[in-house]
Amino acid sequence: MRTGIATVSLSGVLTDKLAAIAAAGFDGIEVFDNDLIASPLSPREVARRCADLGLAIDLFQPVRDVEGVPPDRFDAVLHRFGAKLGVMEELGATTVLCCSNVGADALDDRDLSAEQLHRLGDLAAECGVTIAFEALAWGRHVDRVGQAWDVVRRADHPAVTVAVDTFHLLARGDDGAALAGIPGDRIGFLQVADAPLLDMDVLEWSRHFRCFPGEGTLDVAGVVAATLAAGYTGPVSLEVFSDVVREADPADTARDAMRSLLLLDDQLRATLPPAPVAVEPAFLEVPAGRGVTPALRALGLAPVGTHRSKPVTRWSNGGVDVVVNDDDAAELSLGVTAAPVAGIAERAKALLWPEVDRTRGAGEALLPGIGSPSGLHLLVSAEAGGPDHWADDFVGTAPAAEDLVAIDHVVVAVPTLRLNEEVSFLRSLLALEPGAPEEFMEPHGRLRSRAFRPRTGGLRVVVNVEDTGAAPATGITQVALACSDVRARVRALRDAGVPLLAVPDNYYADLDARFGLDAELLADLRAHSLFYDRVGDGELLHAFTGPLATGFHVELLERSGGYDGYGSAGTHVRLAAQRSAGQLASGG
Amino acid sequence: MRTGIATVSLSGVLTDKLAAIAAAGFDGIEVFDNDLIASPLSPREVARRCADLGLAIDLFQPVRDVEGVPPDRFDAVLHRFGAKLGVMEELGATTVLCCSNVGADALDDRDLSAEQLHRLGDLAAECGVTIAFEALAWGRHVDRVGQAWDVVRRADHPAVTVAVDTFHLLARGDDGAALAGIPGDRIGFLQVADAPLLDMDVLEWSRHFRCFPGEGTLDVAGVVAATLAAGYTGPVSLEVFSDVVREADPADTARDAMRSLLLLDDQLRATLPPAPVAVEPAFLEVPAGRGVTPALRALGLAPVGTHRSKPVTRWSNGGVDVVVNDDDAAELSLGVTAAPVAGIAERAKALLWPEVDRTRGAGEALLPGIGSPSGLHLLVSAEAGGPDHWADDFVGTAPAAEDLVAIDHVVVAVPTLRLNEEVSFLRSLLALEPGAPEEFMEPHGRLRSRAFRPRTGGLRVVVNVEDTGAAPATGITQVALACSDVRARVRALRDAGVPLLAVPDNYYADLDARFGLDAELLADLRAHSLFYDRVGDGELLHAFTGPLATGFHVELLERSGGYDGYGSAGTHVRLAAQRSAGQLASGG
Repeated sequence: MRTGIATVSLSGVLTDKLAAIAAAGFDGIEVFDNDLIASPLSPREVARRCADLGLAIDLFQPVRDVEGVPPDRFDAVLHRFGAKLGVMEELGATTVLCCSNVGADALDDRDLSAEQLHRLGDLAAECGVTIAFEALAWGRHVDRVGQAWDVVRRADHPAVTVAVDTFHLLARGDDGAALAGIPGDRIGFLQVADAPLLDMDVLEWSRHFRCFPGEGTLDVAGVVAATLAAGYTGPVSLEVFSDVVREADPADTARDAMRSLLLLDDQLRATLPPAPVAVEPAFLEVPAGRGVTPALRALGLAPVGTHRSKPVTRWSNGGVDVVVNDDDAAELSLGVTAAPVAGIAERAKALLWPEVDRTRGAGEALLPGIGSPSGLHLLVSAEAGGPDHWADDFVGTAPAAEDLVAIDHVVVAVPTLRLNEEVSFLRSLLALEPGAPEEFMEPHGRLRSRAFRPRTGGLRVVVNVEDTGAAPATGITQVALACSDVRARVRALRDAGVPLLAVPDNYYADLDARFGLDAELLADLRAHSLFYDRVGDGELLHAFTGPLATGFHVELLERSGGYDGYGSAGTHVRLAAQRSAGQLASGG
Repeated sequence: MRTGIATVSLSGVLTDKLAAIAAAGFDGIEVFDNDLIASPLSPREVARRCADLGLAIDLFQPVRDVEGVPPDRFDAVLHRFGAKLGVMEELGATTVLCCSNVGADALDDRDLSAEQLHRLGDLAAECGVTIAFEALAWGRHVDRVGQAWDVVRRADHPAVTVAVDTFHLLARGDDGAALAGIPGDRIGFLQVADAPLLDMDVLEWSRHFRCFPGEGTLDVAGVVAATLAAGYTGPVSLEVFSDVVREADPADTARDAMRSLLLLDDQLRATLPPAPVAVEPAFLEVPAGRGVTPALRALGLAPVGTHRSKPVTRWSNGGVDVVVNDDDAAELSLGVTAAPVAGIAERAKALLWPEVDRTRGAGEALLPGIGSPSGLHLLVSAEAGGPDHWADDFVGTAPAAEDLVAIDHVVVAVPTLRLNEEVSFLRSLLALEPGAPEEFMEPHGRLRSRAFRPRTGGLRVVVNVEDTGAAPATGITQVALACSDVRARVRALRDAGVPLLAVPDNYYADLDARFGLDAELLADLRAHSLFYDRVGDGELLHAFTGPLATGFHVELLERSGGYDGYGSAGTHVRLAAQRSAGQLASGG
């Protein structure tokens, strides 16, 4: 698959964009005319810069409102188009995207449109240029790919082809079937973009909410597959506008964009090492520091082993393991088990996810480390019983089962502009699947939250974005530990002097209003500072510490009756309580 | 008009909200249940806090999904409603807002809904409480005020009334006429909110984009007038949710909210000192500092007078006046002429716009100073020829006419969260009218821009918001000066060593493509670093300096043929050029 991206898809000035696109390994670009117009580089200088960077200029775009034009004004179109052909000659570009007319005065006359495109085709052909004619989803009279193809067919000119844009096509409710009957060599260009399904004006949707394939909900792969099946052999080129890419770092955007094409290609042709099918939480790695040991002891963990070659101690309580690293360079990390370990490391590398530097002694577990955009460090271990299991690197007593059952979930906070990338990390590397997005009021803004889980396996990761104007926390901000008896664990924490988040009395009054709880349970919840939720027969009881010396808040929870959520109904209360307590409101 | 506001309309925790609401002078509040639930204060403590602050609790809201409930689950509703009545008793609140059912299982049976509301009415009446039943615009079966009134009429209970909410009513396409036939004493509560007209899902629109009356485009005043005409005598209470109010400072929001009610009241009953009908730009006041004098000289201004009592010098060139203030506390300010001066000062005071401290010598012009949310200082002078004209405070030679014609417009930058307030300043104090909102790509984000002008008079103010992630500039960032010969003024600036913003050659190539300019004009534009625009017979030629020692960029412009805009087609080029030159991209 030949990869491309439009310069409009990144922030910065043109030279910033070209550098970022080249660094991410793209084959070619679409030059967005406004980027060129605003650049101090001449078209020839841009062409030279691209050549130096190894980037082909696959498309010049857009030229607008060129067909369906009232005949008395078509001379101005010819002048404008001719001028842009001159620019293209200097750029060395040989395909130009022409969009369907959006003008209020556009004429609804396909023969006229065809005739005008034919005349432009003559001009283009003289310069060795091909026109790709695109149906904008908000075109005045041509807004579907089938209509654009009809005009191109009538134009009947070798230099006039149709453009396929997945966003415009899918936004109008078409799918790959809309390309039936279009020969592949009559498709002049393929632009790809995804978007979340939003019920709003299509132009605003397109301008502000497009995203890279796989980050939205449109069937981009289906349209790309149909285009390739028709025989199209040109670039698969990303054209994404959004409030996010306008502001994000262009290097980040370019990598995120390239990954989306790697995943798209994998979806169509299985080109990547396969994703793991089951991922389980295994351990947390915590940098050593003042207060860490007391915090772990208060949670009922005890030291049970030391690492063979590193200054690392394993602490354990039942199903929960924490390794404490005395190395100054240690980072808060999440260990998971998944198979095959080497394959996941290769998949991460193929997807451009950065490796986290780790030394490794002879005979020790492979344990590759991979960094996410939020700064989450993921360490991948094999399951117990085979080679490359993390725990085999430790010498010591086997842990006795106690009252902690498992790491239930981990909450990761990410800045707004990097949310798409973090989601891509979880989906692309680990094949985690997203739950429904949720949004909570926070006293100084909003918290957007989404839970991710593998199709099989017990890992749960909640990704949070805070829109509060303040600099957000990043990486792991909260770890939820499943307890066999959450009340007992709360009491033990209190005995150890660890205060729990104070829950307002009004919350319990509201619980009673909503659920009609019996007085004893209500008193018990209140006495243990527990939040409560119920869905059908399922119940959740959970409590929160403040930020611990471990670097994260701890949530203690007990699920029963098949409760599968995260206590969303009480989240706004917890956020306000955390804000009142002066804690960062970044838990989830 | 009795004024109220819902606590959900402000950011912060409940106690922050109450303090901000009281400081802005509201009569009463709506207690948003979730605010109470998340508060560590008991309902009685909240009641006491409100009493201390002089705030009545006019409404408790909302209780959801209480009618159209499958009968086997109505007992749970009675339990929930009863519990909330208990809370209300402690709060001392006597009106409760019940929203129409949004549940997928809600029954479409008005008699059932009426019967259920009747039973709730019995419970409420026992506690001295009245129910106000509201049709949510996204209610499952009751989504228009007429339907809610039909249910209330059938419920036939003195404690069951209908609520009017301007947003819900107008969002469904109704207007004040929808209230025909509803007696005023059967309207239990009036909630007001405005919104910009957006083509999107109503629930999302409501959650994220509501604003205070006059800040959107809905006919809020019409519905309020109809409600009052029906005989409603209760509070006019603001209920606004938005991404802005979630994050903004609650004190700012509360003042902005109160102003919107003062303006609404004025619209209905002419309660404020009248707004000026004509406003003209008069002068700029600039703090003295290194480089200011050379910058003014380069612009062709010369000193023509000194202030009678202050260390202030008047500089002039034709129709442009700048006063340079040697006082250390001087701020960049805009002087305007408008009448009547004293009335405008009173209007500013009535609308809670802060006065800017100014000393004034005996016999000198009144010249009241008023501060806008962006930090713009506005000084209001009478016209020449009468008392209170600013220029009469200066002694010196009368300025000779030269090549500057007038202050064409002033660009004011404002942080995103304060845009609504800044707009309110221009509209409420000066009765300026907004043009269409525009949005421009900036290399690191977006620039949103809107021009304001009086119905009569020459003042033009452009308000800009930068969404670039960086801390935005605020206050006056650019001043556009109209020139009789912009080319000559550009040459004079260059002779004086003031560089102009470099315009990329590609821009001129595009100009030619778009307009087919003759070669001589094109060469001339290029030689003078001029931007160009044409609409019909109108033309705009304009050039930009970098930021000067005056504290703002200067735009030099020449309009002809009735050109009335701001050169929007070239704005993205200018923004990129300013970014490339390392200048703040905050001009407009």
